[in-house]
Amino acid sequence: MKTKESLGSKRLNLRQTARFLRKHDNYVILTHASPDGDTLGSAYALYYALNEIGKSACVICPDVIPQKYDYFARKTDHIDSQNATIIAVDVADKKLLGALSEKFGDIVDLCIDHHISNTQFAKNLYLDDDAAATAECIYELIAQMKVNINLVTAKALYTGLATDTGCFKYSNVTEKTHLIAASLYEFDINAAEINRLMFDTKSKKLLELEKMVLEAAEFHFDDRCFFLPVTAEMQEKTGCSGTELEGISVISRSVEGVKVGVTAKQVSDNEFKISMRTYPPMDASALCKKLGGGGHIAAAGATVQGNLDEVKQTVLSVIKEALEEVYAGTNTAG
Amino acid sequence: MKTKESLGSKRLNLRQTARFLRKHDNYVILTHASPDGDTLGSAYALYYALNEIGKSACVICPDVIPQKYDYFARKTDHIDSQNATIIAVDVADKKLLGALSEKFGDIVDLCIDHHISNTQFAKNLYLDDDAAATAECIYELIAQMKVNINLVTAKALYTGLATDTGCFKYSNVTEKTHLIAASLYEFDINAAEINRLMFDTKSKKLLELEKMVLEAAEFHFDDRCFFLPVTAEMQEKTGCSGTELEGISVISRSVEGVKVGVTAKQVSDNEFKISMRTYPPMDASALCKKLGGGGHIAAAGATVQGNLDEVKQTVLSVIKEALEEVYAGTNTAG
Repeated sequence: MKTKESLGSKRLNLRQTARFLRKHDNYVILTHASPDGDTLGSAYALYYALNEIGKSACVICPDVIPQKYDYFARKTDHIDSQNATIIAVDVADKKLLGALSEKFGDIVDLCIDHHISNTQFAKNLYLDDDAAATAECIYELIAQMKVNINLVTAKALYTGLATDTGCFKYSNVTEKTHLIAASLYEFDINAAEINRLMFDTKSKKLLELEKMVLEAAEFHFDDRCFFLPVTAEMQEKTGCSGTELEGISVISRSVEGVKVGVTAKQVSDNEFKISMRTYPPMDASALCKKLGGGGHIAAAGATVQGNLDEVKQTVLSVIKEALEEVYAGTNTAG
Repeated sequence: MKTKESLGSKRLNLRQTARFLRKHDNYVILTHASPDGDTLGSAYALYYALNEIGKSACVICPDVIPQKYDYFARKTDHIDSQNATIIAVDVADKKLLGALSEKFGDIVDLCIDHHISNTQFAKNLYLDDDAAATAECIYELIAQMKVNINLVTAKALYTGLATDTGCFKYSNVTEKTHLIAASLYEFDINAAEINRLMFDTKSKKLLELEKMVLEAAEFHFDDRCFFLPVTAEMQEKTGCSGTELEGISVISRSVEGVKVGVTAKQVSDNEFKISMRTYPPMDASALCKKLGGGGHIAAAGATVQGNLDEVKQTVLSVIKEALEEVYAGTNTAG
């Protein structure tokens, strides 16, 4: 099953995917790089389910798995990838395999995913873009295969669901998400402790960074815009970088009355990564397009060249124009 | 039905409570003071359900209902309380009726609640202390009465569920909580927007206060204790007080490695209200008992006299002693 596939994936439905999993063996299950609770929870739930029906399997993560996932993520057996069936879970693009992209990117036999943006890099694809999390797909596959769920599988699946929905907070949640969560509560999953680890635990250095960012943050345009600079200096001083900074953009849209929250993360001397969060009637996608980026209506991004002052001016002028169109006649002085 | 009742409530089961609601009319539905999403969501869901079966009803809140609840909380008709059937929802003690306590405290005909600490002040009591929120009780009563749920009722019920569970995050959530949430998703409730209003929207002045508190916050005892002072000066400068300060104690336990989070809110010149949040093996209830207070194992409180330095010393010495017992031999230097 090692043919290079570049003409798009063969789409499998739930039943076909379950049959695929029953038919093959020696599974290498890959997560995406910078792993989160959904890719890990999905990979391990699948791993435990395959074990349950006597299949050999292992989970390989391109990066070190953070310790906080120890309650379900264990060291798995070694599977020789030469004769393995390669599965990627929650991986929308082979680039997201990170360090494993070169080795595995073109030989994935089956991808199980919920991202509508999936690039169909795998030979076979089970994609449910209505699923709030890939863990929803895995839950349904396990049910379709009539495999028993045990406690650790339930914990892994719950972690996936909670991670991708902000603990059932976001617009991707459906009736089905809650029904699956309800069924996982049949096990003693200690969801409150999982949620504490996932959502209410930040490192001391991130707290330090947040303090610096809030100190430097600025309201503009009648408080409709909140601008948070995350400079290279702040990142160096606190030792916070990369995925650790993800939570910051949530702050940018958490203040009453703010319609456009902007986080400007310095990535090099003369470059900032802009994360924008908006509320109606503002459109983050349209705003970021003007900055050479793109995204969704409520969350989008762009990369802007310049030092902090230049970047701020560029971004604020685009926002000012858009706010003036919407709030004509009201005060939009910076 | 205006007899004074001080010998405890008559306990009704679900069926009896539904029958009570079908039998009477002219309902005055009371919420507790400093209203939250559960007392309001429960009161309005009950109001809409009673309207649906042709009963006259009104909702009375002891305090002004915050604007953010406008999506379900509407002005209701006036009901003459002289000949009314008085219901209190999510009210564990008549004192919690606040400004309405004197007028209504001793004449409540039915209390619907989920607090195990309910003082049985009402003539009749429907109490389900396994329910994560009073909204769960109301949902089941509506189902028992076979009354249709409509969109606004679904929004009110969802708000109650989400409020009291931290959006399905806490240990009070059960399988049933998620099943009820799933059934409410049959309506176009826009849960993501409700959750944004409930959980991700803070006032600019609260943000200012949080900055000040974090600036003054101190780690102690090998970072196992995080102490957050909320002085009278901070409250005056920002204009933040009372229930607006509730979110602060969440911060005190959000940092990795912290076992005891302490928030010290100044309530007068020489008095602080201590909120303590702990993780195992630490016990907030035992710690606060030593300070003359009490509460639960993970969350407790006490009132301590003194200026900030004195209060800090009192509280930290109690915590130091307890930490030393548990972490004997490790570094607990302040």
